[in-house]
Amino acid sequence: MEITEPMKILVINAGSSSIKYQLFDMQTEQALAAGLVERINEPNSRIKHRLLDGHHAGETVLDMPIENHHQGLSQVARLLMDDTVGVIRQPDEIDAVGHRAVHGGETFNQTSVIDEAVKKKMRALIPLAPLHNPANITGIEVAEQIFPKAVQVAVFDTAFHQTMPPAAYRYALPDELYQHHGIRAYGFHGTSHLYVSKVAADYLGQPANKTNLITAHLGNGCSICAVQGGQSVDTSMGLTPLAGLIMGTRSGDIDPGVLLFLQRKLNLSVDEADRLLNKKSGLQGICGLNDVRDIQNQQAEGNQSAELALEMYGYRIKKYIGAYLAVLGQVDGLIFTAGVGENSAYIRNLACRGLAPLGIELDRAKNEANSTGIREIQTESSRVKILVIPTNEELEIARQTWSTIRGGHYYE
Amino acid sequence: MEITEPMKILVINAGSSSIKYQLFDMQTEQALAAGLVERINEPNSRIKHRLLDGHHAGETVLDMPIENHHQGLSQVARLLMDDTVGVIRQPDEIDAVGHRAVHGGETFNQTSVIDEAVKKKMRALIPLAPLHNPANITGIEVAEQIFPKAVQVAVFDTAFHQTMPPAAYRYALPDELYQHHGIRAYGFHGTSHLYVSKVAADYLGQPANKTNLITAHLGNGCSICAVQGGQSVDTSMGLTPLAGLIMGTRSGDIDPGVLLFLQRKLNLSVDEADRLLNKKSGLQGICGLNDVRDIQNQQAEGNQSAELALEMYGYRIKKYIGAYLAVLGQVDGLIFTAGVGENSAYIRNLACRGLAPLGIELDRAKNEANSTGIREIQTESSRVKILVIPTNEELEIARQTWSTIRGGHYYE
Repeated sequence: MEITEPMKILVINAGSSSIKYQLFDMQTEQALAAGLVERINEPNSRIKHRLLDGHHAGETVLDMPIENHHQGLSQVARLLMDDTVGVIRQPDEIDAVGHRAVHGGETFNQTSVIDEAVKKKMRALIPLAPLHNPANITGIEVAEQIFPKAVQVAVFDTAFHQTMPPAAYRYALPDELYQHHGIRAYGFHGTSHLYVSKVAADYLGQPANKTNLITAHLGNGCSICAVQGGQSVDTSMGLTPLAGLIMGTRSGDIDPGVLLFLQRKLNLSVDEADRLLNKKSGLQGICGLNDVRDIQNQQAEGNQSAELALEMYGYRIKKYIGAYLAVLGQVDGLIFTAGVGENSAYIRNLACRGLAPLGIELDRAKNEANSTGIREIQTESSRVKILVIPTNEELEIARQTWSTIRGGHYYE
Repeated sequence: MEITEPMKILVINAGSSSIKYQLFDMQTEQALAAGLVERINEPNSRIKHRLLDGHHAGETVLDMPIENHHQGLSQVARLLMDDTVGVIRQPDEIDAVGHRAVHGGETFNQTSVIDEAVKKKMRALIPLAPLHNPANITGIEVAEQIFPKAVQVAVFDTAFHQTMPPAAYRYALPDELYQHHGIRAYGFHGTSHLYVSKVAADYLGQPANKTNLITAHLGNGCSICAVQGGQSVDTSMGLTPLAGLIMGTRSGDIDPGVLLFLQRKLNLSVDEADRLLNKKSGLQGICGLNDVRDIQNQQAEGNQSAELALEMYGYRIKKYIGAYLAVLGQVDGLIFTAGVGENSAYIRNLACRGLAPLGIELDRAKNEANSTGIREIQTESSRVKILVIPTNEELEIARQTWSTIRGGHYYE
C-alpha cells in the first residue's frame, strides 16, 4: 500500500439519521474541516459545515432535502471541495476514511482495514447493536462509493476493552448465554478512554504500559474505566451502553428485579421498558432535565430534585472510583473527560468528596478555576493525580486509521 | 405490659412452605430448642426438632402430613412441650414471639409490636415482596392463635437499611416510580448486618456509633453493607434481593440491557426471565453448582468453570469493598459472615486480593486456620481489621423482640 504525504484522513461517525465528519491533515494533526449532516430522510434535514482552516474559519448551514446517507455524504464531499469553504480539490486527496464503529463484539479487538470479510463480520454483530451497527455499515458503503481511492478503516468503540479479564466481562448468568449468544460486558467509549489514558501517561511522563488510571468519560453517555498499564481491565458499560453510571436519560445500574417489577406492575412491554430506561431515566428521570448545566442552575436556585439528581450522579461515580481503586490497587491518575467531566467543577467535587483517605484529594481552587486544556486539580498531598483532559475521539480515530493502514496493531 | 422473668422468646421465620423456629431463654441468651417444619402442604412434609438443652441434646425427625402453617406450628408447640424433647410445659411460658419479616418498605424503620394496624401495613407491602410477606403474615396469624398470651413482634429485614441516604437508595428512574410505586433500594439481611456490626464494635472495643464497617454477609443469598457509626448507609441488594453480589443461583448486578436483550432474543416471558435470574444464574449459572464448597472441590480438581465462578464471585465482592471504602472514607473493620463468609478462606482471599494499597491485607495463615468463633485474620500492618464473625440472626431477632416489648426503639 502506498501512502503519499501529506496525508488527509476523513473521520466519519454515521448514525441512523446523521453523519458526523472531520477531516484531518495528519502531518500536523490539525482538523481542517468538520460538520454534521442531520435528520437524514426526515423533515428539516440539513448540513452544518465548519471550515477550521485559519484563513477562513466559519460555518455554513445548508437546509436541504437529504433522502439518504449517499446524498448526505455526497454533499459533504462537495462542501469539502468547494472553492470557498472547502479544503481539498478532489476526492482522491482523501487518503483514508476512519469510521467510528460501535460494536465489534469479540470479533474485533483491533482497528481493522475494511474489506468484504470485515463488513460481513460487522453484519454478524448487528444483533448486539441493532441500532448502531447497520448505520455504521451504511456509512462505510457510502464512503466506499464516494471516496473509492481511500482506504476504509473501522475503529471500534469496544475494541479497547477487549483486554478485560473474564472476571470483569462475564455475567453470573447461564454459561450458554455467553457461549451461544455473546452475552457479556463489552464496554463502550473505548476510543475516548484510550485517547485520554495516552495523553495522561504522556503528561505524567510515564510509559503508558506502567501507568494505572481511572478514566471517567462524562458526556451524554457516561462510562468509567480501570486502565492498568495502558489496557482496559474493567469498565462500567456492559453488553449495552445502558449499564453503569447515571447518564442524561439512561438509568445506569439498577437492580434487575426493578425491571421485572415494572413489567409486572405497570404491564410494560419490552419496548416500553427499553424506552423508559434509555430515554426517560437518568438525570431526566430524577429531575426532569438531562443537561448538567441546566440542573446546576436549578440546584443553585434551590430546586431539591435537581440537587438530588446531581448528588446521585456524583455518588455513583465515587463508588465506581472506589471499585476501580480496589481493582487496580495502585493508581497514578484519575482522569475526568468529555462535556461534564471537562466542564463541571461541581460534579468533579461530588465524585471526589470524602476520598482523601484513599489518596484522592481535590484542590478546590484548582478545580474551580476557569480553564481549558489539560490541567491538574489535586492538592499537593493527594497521592493520586487528578487530571482534566479534553477528549478528542475524532483525532484518536484518525491516528488509529493512520497507524493501521501502515500495518500497525493498535491495541496491546 | 408485664414481663415476668425468666423470659422465653420464640423466634419464627415463616416461608411459603416452611417454618424455622428457635426458642431462647433471654436471661442466658441460650437457644433451648430449634427446628424446621418443611414442605408444608407438599409430599414428604416433616419436622426436624433439635433440643439444645445440655442434658438431652439431640434431634427428632417427624415425617408426617402437614397441610398448613397452623398444623405445622401446632406440632412445634407440641414438641416444645413434650416430656422428652420439650423445654416448656405450656404455651403461656413463651412470653413473646419474634417474627422475621422480610419487607418493611419505608413503613417500618423499627422493630414493631404487632397489632391489627401493623398487619394491615404489612399487607399493604405485599406488592414489594409477593412471595415473602404473605408467608410472614400467615406465620404471625398462626402464632397469635397458638400462643395467644405471647406478645407478637415483627423484625424487618429491611429496617436496618432505612438510614440509607437518598443518593444511596434512589434509582435514576422517573421520580414517579419512587413516589407512587415505592421503587427504590431497600436492602435485606439487615438483621445479620446489624448483629455482626454490633459484635464487631464490641470486639474492637469501640462504641458502635463511632465505628465504620463493611459487613459482607455471604450465604445462600449474599449482600454487603457500608455501616457508618452503627447505621447502614449503603447496601448491595435493592428493591429485591436479586441485586448486588453473585449468589448461589442469583445473578446479582447485570446490565439491565441484558434483560431486554434476553426477552427479545429468546422471547422470554417476565416469569421466565425472573426464574432465569433468580434460580438459574449466579454460581449455578456459571459452573452448574451453587454450593461454594462443592465448587472449591471442583476447582481443586482443575475444573475451569468452577475456577471462573469463584473468581467472579470474589471479584464482585472486592469491587463492592472498594466502593464502600469510597463511601465511608475511613473504615475500622471488614467483616465476613454467614456460611461462605465464615467458612471459605478461599473466597475471603479472593475478595481481599490486591487490596493492601487500600489498607486491607489478609494474613494467609490466620485466614486459613481452622477455627470457629470471632477471629481476626489481617496482617499486623493492615490498617483495616478483617474479622470473621459468625452471624446469629435468630438471637438478634430475640434481642430486638425483648428490647422492643420493653419499649425501646431499636434502630438509631
